[in-house]
This record gives sequence, structure tokens and C-alpha cells, in this order.
Amino acid sequence: MNSGLQDNSFRLIVDLGNTRAKLAVYEGGRVVLLETAENPDPEKLKALLPEQFIPSGAIISSVAGDPGPYMKALGNFRWINLDYDTPLPFTNHYLSPETLGRDRIALVAGARHLFPGSDLLVIDMGTAITFDFINGQGEYKGGAISPGLTTRFRALHNFTKRLPLLNPVEINYLTGRTTDESILSGVINGIRAETDGIIEEYLHLYPQLKIILSGGDMFYFEKKLKNNIFATPNLVITGLKQILDYNLEK
Amino acid sequence: MNSGLQDNSFRLIVDLGNTRAKLAVYEGGRVVLLETAENPDPEKLKALLPEQFIPSGAIISSVAGDPGPYMKALGNFRWINLDYDTPLPFTNHYLSPETLGRDRIALVAGARHLFPGSDLLVIDMGTAITFDFINGQGEYKGGAISPGLTTRFRALHNFTKRLPLLNPVEINYLTGRTTDESILSGVINGIRAETDGIIEEYLHLYPQLKIILSGGDMFYFEKKLKNNIFATPNLVITGLKQILDYNLEK
Repeated sequence: MNSGLQDNSFRLIVDLGNTRAKLAVYEGGRVVLLETAENPDPEKLKALLPEQFIPSGAIISSVAGDPGPYMKALGNFRWINLDYDTPLPFTNHYLSPETLGRDRIALVAGARHLFPGSDLLVIDMGTAITFDFINGQGEYKGGAISPGLTTRFRALHNFTKRLPLLNPVEINYLTGRTTDESILSGVINGIRAETDGIIEEYLHLYPQLKIILSGGDMFYFEKKLKNNIFATPNLVITGLKQILDYNLEK
Repeated sequence: MNSGLQDNSFRLIVDLGNTRAKLAVYEGGRVVLLETAENPDPEKLKALLPEQFIPSGAIISSVAGDPGPYMKALGNFRWINLDYDTPLPFTNHYLSPETLGRDRIALVAGARHLFPGSDLLVIDMGTAITFDFINGQGEYKGGAISPGLTTRFRALHNFTKRLPLLNPVEINYLTGRTTDESILSGVINGIRAETDGIIEEYLHLYPQLKIILSGGDMFYFEKKLKNNIFATPNLVITGLKQILDYNLEK
């Protein structure tokens, strides 16, 4: 990877999540570096970049607090710190934009880039499961936030007195014959049934809807949902790249 | 209400939940007293009974620890302390009976009493949402445990950094236009879609299935589910009465 020059086509994307960061470098439309770091500090992220790397633009999105120290450590680039007032390549009809998660903004931008002109339902499966709807005219309307896979296991354990804490596994039964199986069925079949049902309700309203599935837990569900979905694990990165490009090229 | 004699048709039912107790007195098949107490201590429960009340039999079920102090305070009755080895008026095929919640045992006994001979799916909406299946031959097979309504709100707040803690309200939208609306849609429409979906899967397997809805949060959902359901808020009490009768009459 060539670097060291600001007059180049490299762009840096940083997604700071609650417990994990993703860092990507694009050269033009192509991802040339994609790294994930658990519980990263700024210096740890910096170490993931090539030496003397200077992109022509960079974007950072944090759902976990001030990204300032990360921006400073990574380099004195032409940064965009994604916030609720960042110009976006779609129309935001959300009525509380200041509380709209930056990850949801990026997911919508990424989905719109993949399927411009289509009605879209974006389902992201992480700590929370988010549903986001944007119509074919590029008007983002909002959606829903539901507890995610590991969140449901934790909640059953923490908020009751007798249930164990389980980890997800593949299951192929509806009726759990033990308490562990009952929890696995309730959480995994529950999310599947909920997701199928919400998709059906949107399809009823928008028959041409395209459904996009993303997030770290999508692998438990992508093969099990009733409707055709487009599965892409790095939609937040894709979306942040689109938001960066949109702002650099304005 | 006459009392004071052990040779009578009064029977006492006590259901100790995590934060709430229900106490019922039956005279024959009829409920003559039904009380609910929040965070009760033994003496507070005792005060709910008539003076010199001595039932011909009593049952207590606790999901929250040792019920001994409650039994002692209520009176030296002919007690059954519901446990995994208590004889039951149905066949228990659960493979981990020692971890089967006493509330689930009671729900199944209650449902079987209401619809003997039918395939039954019992859905109880409390801290957890439990699904329990018993076939028309009286064979209990198990089910599922999923996070309940308030548990989902708590989980979204506690396990993420930015989401508020909400209380349930009636909603009539699919797409939340604000973060509060998104959470309400995700939790309430999510539970509705999940419950509808799981019911559909059981109906596919057992077309004659009867569906019974119970628990404190059933009122948010009973009118909104797609399929016909039989809604009864006190199914645990009904079931405990059946288990008591079964053991006294053996």
C-alpha cells in the first residue's frame, strides 16, 4: 500500500463500538485494510495503521464516548467526527436526530449505497438489534431497537434468580426439554420469529422492500430467516465511507 | 366465610414470586379470597388471612427461595411445598425436572385443568416470557424462556451506554420516529411478533392446539395477537389448586 502523501485516494474509516473498534482503509472504492480490535486504546489503534500513513480523508464514529483521543493518536488528518449534524447522503426524518445512534446513521448510509432507489429495511444484530427503514426516495423514517442475542442471555440471567448465563449455539428444536434448551429456544427462536414477523409487517407495507442483515450476530440467523435477505457484516464501515465521501466531495 | 374447622372445603394457595406474592382461598371450586402483596414478609401475608382460618389443605410455591418462614407464619396446616418431586396431575417429560420453574409446573397444571385432552401451548408473560407445551395425552414436553416486557426495557438501558429506561405504553406504530419510539416498537412489537411467530410454529405442528395466555403483562398483548387465545391472569393459582387437590385426593 502506498502512503505518505495526502494527495491520494486513501481514506480511513474508524468505527468505535462499546467493546470493539473496526478500522478500515479504502483505496478508491476498494478496502485494502480491515482490522478489528477488542477494547482498544488510542495507541493500539494507531499501531494498526501503516507507518507514515496519511489518508486524503478520515471519518470516525463513536457510540462509546469522546473519540477525540483516538483522532489525535491516529494522526492530524482531515477528520470528520460523525455527529447528528454531519451532512448525510440521505434525508433524515428522525424526530430526535440528536439521539440517533451513529451506527444506525452509518447502516442507513451503507444500505442506501448498496441499493439506491429501493425501499430498505436494515437489520443490525449486535448488543441491540436495530431495525431501520429508508424509502426509495432516500427518506430515512426511523425504526426499532430490540435487545440483541447476548443481551437476552444476560438479561435472563441477571434479572431472574434462578436462570443460568448461556452462550449462543446452533439449535434445531422448538421445544426445549431442559432449562438450558428452554433458554436457547426462547432467545434464538425468539429472535428469529421476531425478525421474521417484523420483516413480514414491513413487506406488507412495502412489497418491493429489500432486507439487509448486518452485525456480528447475523451469522446465527442469516440462513434461518424466511425471506430473502442480503447479508453483509461490515455495513457500518461501508456507510461511514459513503458519509466521508459525501462530505469530501460536497 | 366460615373457618376454624379443618374438616372443611377451604384450601389455601400461596404463590411467592420474585417481587410479589399471590394468596388465594378456595371453597370447593370457587375462589373466595384473592390477594396480591408486593415484597411481602411472612407476617404481612399472614395478615391477609381471616382470623382462626384453618384450611383442609394448603400449597405454597416459591420461585424466590425457601418458603419455610412463610409456611410457619401462615399456620400449621397440611402443607404441600411444591418442589420438583411433588406428584403432578400430568406426566412430566422435562429432562431437567429439578430446574423446572415451579411457576411453569403450576401453569401447565392449570392449563391442563381448563382444557383436559387438548394440545396446549401456555404463554406466561412476566419477568420472563415462558412457553410451555403439553399434549392432549397429558405429557408435558418443555418449552422456551424469553426475556419479558420490563426485562427487555431494563436490558436495553443497562447493557448499552446511551439508551433510556422506558416503561411500557400502548403503541400503534411499527416505525419509531424517535429513540423512545424505537425502543417501544422494538420491545412491544418485538414481543408481539415473536409470540405470534412461535404460536404459528406450534400450530403448524399441532393444528388443534389451544393457546393460553397468562401473566401480568398479558394485558398489553391479548388483543393484538393474530390467533385466538384464551387469556387468564391467574393461571398459576388455578394450577396450584389442581396440584393441591391431586395430592390430597390421591
